[in-house]
Amino acid sequence: MNEDNLWCLQENGYHAGLHKHYEGLFTQGNGYMHVRASFEEGCSDAPQDEEYLRFPDNVTLEKPRHPKSKQGTYIPGIVGQHPLLKEEIVNLPYFLGLEFRSAGERLDMDRSRISGYSRRLDLRDGRLHRSFLWETEEGMKLQCTYSRYLSMADTHLSIQQVQLEVLTGEVQLEVKATLRADVRTNGMNHFARVIPSADFNEGSMSLETLTEEGNQIFMHAVLETSEPLSWQAEHTPLMAALRGECKLQAGNRFTLSKLIAVTTDRDPEEGAVRSRALTELSRARSLGWEQLYHRHAESWKRKWQEADVAIKGDDHAQLSVRASLYHLIRSNAARDARVAICAKGYAGEAYFGRYFWDTEINLLPFFLHTNPQAARNLLLFRYNTLEGAKRNAQKYGYRGARYAWESSISGEEQCANWQYADHEIHITADIVYAMYHYVRATGDEAFLEQYGIDMLVETARYWCGRVDWNREGTCELLGVMGPDEYLPLTRNNAFTNRMVKFSLEQTVACLDSLQGIRPESYAAAAERLCLDPEERELFRNTAEKLRLPYDSKTEIVPQSDDFASYADLDFDSIWTDRSRPFGHFISQERNYRSKALKQADVLELMLLFPQEFTEEQLKAAYNYYEPITTHDSSLSVAVHGIVASWLNQKETAANFLQRVMAIDLSAEKKGAAEGIHIANCGGLWQLIVYGFAGLKSAMWSESIELQPRLPEGWEELSFPLAWRGERYRVTVIQDGYEVHKLNGGDSVAGATI
Amino acid sequence: MNEDNLWCLQENGYHAGLHKHYEGLFTQGNGYMHVRASFEEGCSDAPQDEEYLRFPDNVTLEKPRHPKSKQGTYIPGIVGQHPLLKEEIVNLPYFLGLEFRSAGERLDMDRSRISGYSRRLDLRDGRLHRSFLWETEEGMKLQCTYSRYLSMADTHLSIQQVQLEVLTGEVQLEVKATLRADVRTNGMNHFARVIPSADFNEGSMSLETLTEEGNQIFMHAVLETSEPLSWQAEHTPLMAALRGECKLQAGNRFTLSKLIAVTTDRDPEEGAVRSRALTELSRARSLGWEQLYHRHAESWKRKWQEADVAIKGDDHAQLSVRASLYHLIRSNAARDARVAICAKGYAGEAYFGRYFWDTEINLLPFFLHTNPQAARNLLLFRYNTLEGAKRNAQKYGYRGARYAWESSISGEEQCANWQYADHEIHITADIVYAMYHYVRATGDEAFLEQYGIDMLVETARYWCGRVDWNREGTCELLGVMGPDEYLPLTRNNAFTNRMVKFSLEQTVACLDSLQGIRPESYAAAAERLCLDPEERELFRNTAEKLRLPYDSKTEIVPQSDDFASYADLDFDSIWTDRSRPFGHFISQERNYRSKALKQADVLELMLLFPQEFTEEQLKAAYNYYEPITTHDSSLSVAVHGIVASWLNQKETAANFLQRVMAIDLSAEKKGAAEGIHIANCGGLWQLIVYGFAGLKSAMWSESIELQPRLPEGWEELSFPLAWRGERYRVTVIQDGYEVHKLNGGDSVAGATI
Repeated sequence: MNEDNLWCLQENGYHAGLHKHYEGLFTQGNGYMHVRASFEEGCSDAPQDEEYLRFPDNVTLEKPRHPKSKQGTYIPGIVGQHPLLKEEIVNLPYFLGLEFRSAGERLDMDRSRISGYSRRLDLRDGRLHRSFLWETEEGMKLQCTYSRYLSMADTHLSIQQVQLEVLTGEVQLEVKATLRADVRTNGMNHFARVIPSADFNEGSMSLETLTEEGNQIFMHAVLETSEPLSWQAEHTPLMAALRGECKLQAGNRFTLSKLIAVTTDRDPEEGAVRSRALTELSRARSLGWEQLYHRHAESWKRKWQEADVAIKGDDHAQLSVRASLYHLIRSNAARDARVAICAKGYAGEAYFGRYFWDTEINLLPFFLHTNPQAARNLLLFRYNTLEGAKRNAQKYGYRGARYAWESSISGEEQCANWQYADHEIHITADIVYAMYHYVRATGDEAFLEQYGIDMLVETARYWCGRVDWNREGTCELLGVMGPDEYLPLTRNNAFTNRMVKFSLEQTVACLDSLQGIRPESYAAAAERLCLDPEERELFRNTAEKLRLPYDSKTEIVPQSDDFASYADLDFDSIWTDRSRPFGHFISQERNYRSKALKQADVLELMLLFPQEFTEEQLKAAYNYYEPITTHDSSLSVAVHGIVASWLNQKETAANFLQRVMAIDLSAEKKGAAEGIHIANCGGLWQLIVYGFAGLKSAMWSESIELQPRLPEGWEELSFPLAWRGERYRVTVIQDGYEVHKLNGGDSVAGATI
Repeated sequence: MNEDNLWCLQENGYHAGLHKHYEGLFTQGNGYMHVRASFEEGCSDAPQDEEYLRFPDNVTLEKPRHPKSKQGTYIPGIVGQHPLLKEEIVNLPYFLGLEFRSAGERLDMDRSRISGYSRRLDLRDGRLHRSFLWETEEGMKLQCTYSRYLSMADTHLSIQQVQLEVLTGEVQLEVKATLRADVRTNGMNHFARVIPSADFNEGSMSLETLTEEGNQIFMHAVLETSEPLSWQAEHTPLMAALRGECKLQAGNRFTLSKLIAVTTDRDPEEGAVRSRALTELSRARSLGWEQLYHRHAESWKRKWQEADVAIKGDDHAQLSVRASLYHLIRSNAARDARVAICAKGYAGEAYFGRYFWDTEINLLPFFLHTNPQAARNLLLFRYNTLEGAKRNAQKYGYRGARYAWESSISGEEQCANWQYADHEIHITADIVYAMYHYVRATGDEAFLEQYGIDMLVETARYWCGRVDWNREGTCELLGVMGPDEYLPLTRNNAFTNRMVKFSLEQTVACLDSLQGIRPESYAAAAERLCLDPEERELFRNTAEKLRLPYDSKTEIVPQSDDFASYADLDFDSIWTDRSRPFGHFISQERNYRSKALKQADVLELMLLFPQEFTEEQLKAAYNYYEPITTHDSSLSVAVHGIVASWLNQKETAANFLQRVMAIDLSAEKKGAAEGIHIANCGGLWQLIVYGFAGLKSAMWSESIELQPRLPEGWEELSFPLAWRGERYRVTVIQDGYEVHKLNGGDSVAGATI
């Protein structure tokens, strides 16, 4: 078996129409920075500096710009203000630029004569490789080989290498290396000042960029070539560029390396932005290429040891899950709790680099069980943005904290469409759920006392203002968009009400417990939060009286109190091409009054509270909702796959697995063109771990319990699992499983189904 | 009694803070063009060329720009495209500019020493008068008197006159007359090309403007002065200007007249834009000032004869109703059915010059009974925009025609906020209701056959696509915003469902009747409209099966099927200052889930179908809804006044009358700052005619029937009334009424209550 097939995403044959897809899919990153996989030399007919005004349309359904190629260079936390879209992550200067000309003919993948093209992202070390044969008009043949990576160990560094081997003829080669600030973010320029400079004796150049928000970004590049070139500066006001020339004969191998250090004023490290970049670079040069790579590769290796899911018997699933884990690992800014993971995994401008509930519900479980420190940071991000959440609540006229549907880096609401921003309120409860999930999976009870209690009390305050009390003496949540975004204003959405009830119950329990166990600590918190016994009673009463639109006897748990009153649709007559989203075939107006779910809603509820529903209820819900769910959201199929698996519908679950894997990987659908569906990456992990391996959520289980139902053909599934401070390896086969404690520990659990 | 008090709107004493209010309130117009009452010389610190991007916020609640002064020059039909707000009426070049300087000191109402200021809009002839004393820094005193009007007889002409009388000292007077294109519409420049020119020998100048949409506007001005001035051109790229100087002694009276002709390529008249303006102007000059004014005044006189409402015993109401009628009369483009009357009566940029349901429901009754030809034109506008309505339907995925919530001049939807555009669908039925109202009030049955049938069939098609059939075999209208815009997505809104049912019923009745009476005409229409018997049956069945959320036994007619499920509000704790809109005290989010009406909804229904509800139902509805209605829409109070009057709640009705009158007139609230609430002007007429005079709607009555309930203190109310081709005068006193047929006819009805 060729290990490469199980570890490398491959592009074979060049298709200009797929460029954006692969740019997204092959995005490289190291937590600190992320770069889409655009060609070093750019693309003809794909200018990156087009100015336009993007409107706050429905992101799922709008037609994105940039038909051909979109560069993207992102550092989480560096954001700008768009007049209509609000805060957006800034597409930073493209620092990978390398152009080649032979006798004046520019290398261009579309216009040059290219053959034998292939590209490969090696998931083991995140290195991107490209190779092809370039025949110039004058008949020279050059074998071109590129590779590049962003160091996972030295996260300010980017390392590029190109080798050009002359097969035939004599080449007058011109090389141009650039750092280009002539880029845009959703059509906007966010740069207030750009200063290119170079030292062409040394073959180095730099680009200093000041954003309109006042962030400084410093990029410093050093070039090394196999033959000495005499560099000349060719700057423009928005670009640092060095140009050199050399003559090559058949048989010659020319190599060029470009080493770049990127620093910003937002980095936690001390020292001036510029001098840190220079220091990084000189340290790197003294380490040397091999050592640099070694450090990087070791760092990736450790990450894979903690996270890899090994599947025997299904190579496609094996590669797919690794692609998802790769993007999850790279997106995580392990040491920085001032940012979280944005909805497109920092691989595109869709969703503007903002933070959604995806983080808590779709991504967190993976991190909980592979990198608890990262999970902790994700929750700390919410703690760090509590003040922003309080400002949100105030803006809406409530006390307490209301987390943003689309969070800025300061926690403030950025969603430009009111139906989501105003009404998709479950996010605030999702965060509390996630915090408890974290505490239960890790045992880090101290988190609650140190950070959690403020989040609990402030969000409980918000909920007490947000509920409406009815004449029956119960309270309700009206005007709510649940997870299903195709019904914007529903009454008592089951998912939302249950999550809010949970959140309030935990608040009450946490306060009770703290007061009992550590009264002085409780007293300090109560004083800090101005919490009096009356308000605690209000929390308790609201938790108790918040009605749920179902109970244990409900046959089909309704999505909301008013769900039955929406219109039935004849899907077949409307959705005439199921390869495209349902939303393309119906007006929002009609959609908003019809029973067509964008995504799992009741099933998501049952996934989060599995022990509260009977198997009959799960089955009835699945049978009722699945046919009317469009999966227009990428958050949906994984949930359906898990539930299908729980219901032992193996074939259906396997079909959902295929759909999950296709979301980013399908070249046909250009799935990754606008970025990675990072929630779906987390969803794939959950489908495998909660669905196929049948792991009982740490939320509801003290110990590792599994009820595996492997897809047909899977011989063995194994994955590491962090659980309450210990690390385990879980191995599942068709008729049993084994849990092996790592660090020299023994097997702690095992069962035969 | 001083007649002026009953005919003149007066501004006494200058307050810079009220300037915008009076600019709106004193707007002059003649159907063809409209100009806000800005000072001829402009205002210091009120630049008119500020560029900014206006966002599609909620118009009712947003804070408008231009704190001090906003010029506005509008020709209905001349529109431009705003990137966010869509189609908007263009604020054309300001042609009234006249500046004076004395020894270099510029006359400015804020900075100069001004005393004895007063301004007066004479509603009889629409002339605006201004006078004040200007003391210059050098001690000269000038008594300044301005007057201006847009000719109601020669609608392309504007006539201005200024007299400066030197009381003390010697004045070196500098005069500058301008035509200025340095203006904006909601922060946008809509002009592609501006060409100023002048003939300073003749004292004439012109400004040729080409809009981005390709409209040409030509303004030509001629100046005449009491002493000959030597004019010099002082153009800028966006302004035509003539400057002249003269020396005046104490006792001198200097007069300046500015006569302007405005023509556009959109005018129905034949001939080139430029030459028509020159012809208009030379014709005007040959007529002379007196004859010009005479023609204008006669035209206004005829209009008042057809429309004036005379009230004895309430001078404030007398003046108020005339102010409303003035704006209704001036807003109506009598001879042009390519435009209707926009929501701000062409007196401001709010609502962008678009057409709403106000036209049909609030304005039409006044025109039906005073100027049936104008009413016909308003309906013809809807016929003329039927193709636009069909495109709207298609865009939403329906057959037939769907009138726009905010109509462009071509009928296409311009509303930038989806909750209104998508869901406030009653407009399409309102237009059919209005058409029937027109036919019944005028007897113009031919309208139906010639124009109406297309509108009926195409709108019926839309409704058949828009309804959802439920399992009980009835059909419903889900996801609907009724007239109450504070509940965006309701189920079976009573108003909407009744209006749609009416519309479908009339379609069926019209088709049946036409087929019976004029089968060949029916056959032609059926062929033109591709109407087959099956579709007619669908219309009939849908009309029959569309459910109403009430019947004759319902105690409190619900606003919608789901109304009871919204939250109750404690208004007193939220709405702490009732002088400001309720909407300022609550988030949209909370508003959208609460029982707080923006405006009359069930009561509006009962106003349109009075015979279908018992007095008990009317009373119950009033008692239930009135306390929870915020009247944040100006369409609300008049309806409440009518219903209160019907319920014989005289004091309450009189209070509503005060509120109706205050909407535009209140200087305290700066009611007219952003334009005239033209629907409320129509509402005032309805309150008086339907409410106090108790006229039974022509929709439901063959003959003129009244049930008067005059407010306390009103001695006599009388008004002309066009009814089925005849004209009458109705006179109401406290204990009876008289209907007198005009044109030599006799009294046809009379009764004692």
